[in-house]
Amino acid sequence: MTDPIADMLTRIRNALTAKHETVEMPGSNMKRAIADILLKEGYVKDVKYVDDNLSGKIVITLKYSEGNKSVISGLKRVSKPGLRHYSGAEKMPKVLGGLGTAIVSTSKGIMTDKQAKAANVGGEVLCFIW
Amino acid sequence: MTDPIADMLTRIRNALTAKHETVEMPGSNMKRAIADILLKEGYVKDVKYVDDNLSGKIVITLKYSEGNKSVISGLKRVSKPGLRHYSGAEKMPKVLGGLGTAIVSTSKGIMTDKQAKAANVGGEVLCFIW
Repeated sequence: MTDPIADMLTRIRNALTAKHETVEMPGSNMKRAIADILLKEGYVKDVKYVDDNLSGKIVITLKYSEGNKSVISGLKRVSKPGLRHYSGAEKMPKVLGGLGTAIVSTSKGIMTDKQAKAANVGGEVLCFIW
Repeated sequence: MTDPIADMLTRIRNALTAKHETVEMPGSNMKRAIADILLKEGYVKDVKYVDDNLSGKIVITLKYSEGNKSVISGLKRVSKPGLRHYSGAEKMPKVLGGLGTAIVSTSKGIMTDKQAKAANVGGEVLCFIW
């Protein structure tokens, strides 16, 4: 697997299309951090780690609103192994003018675009969620 | 009606949610230009003007893909009568990293973010479509 983050986003996207209640994926430090942000920002209902070790499975419970509409309407990988995408604190991308969220890997950890801006740190723009 | 563009976007959004085949609205120069861009960019199936005069009704035929999924997944008013939003040619907003389209009102007419960048003109960022 060359891009575990892309794999994570694809699994979530496919599970949402299929209206699954949960989606599973192999864990990692970075994927745990992304899952935590999805939870904190209200995009998913629950995040569980099956094992204690970092590579243990992550189980995400997806969130649907009335009419069985997915709360996440899109996910996009931005930085890629073959083409890294970095952004300074001042030039953090605004996803749909603030409607969505960018997840950024900074020297102070993995955080949202808003948090990176507030902390005045730049970093690698991992993905967009909206 | 204080914001005819917002009204246009709301009508399209509501019609897509209701899975309507077409949506109608009162016309104007600017709304005609926006509808033409929606058609040219492949977001809608057809655009018709009922009368010859500019305020004549616009009828947009919406576009759905397999599974009755709307081709437009979102529309957002950016510049508003109470808070105008302008952008220079170099700083044109990229909607979801190029996945979507911004419609910009420039001195050379109403065009997409990509066209504005290519023409090296800035303008008022009317809305995002993705």
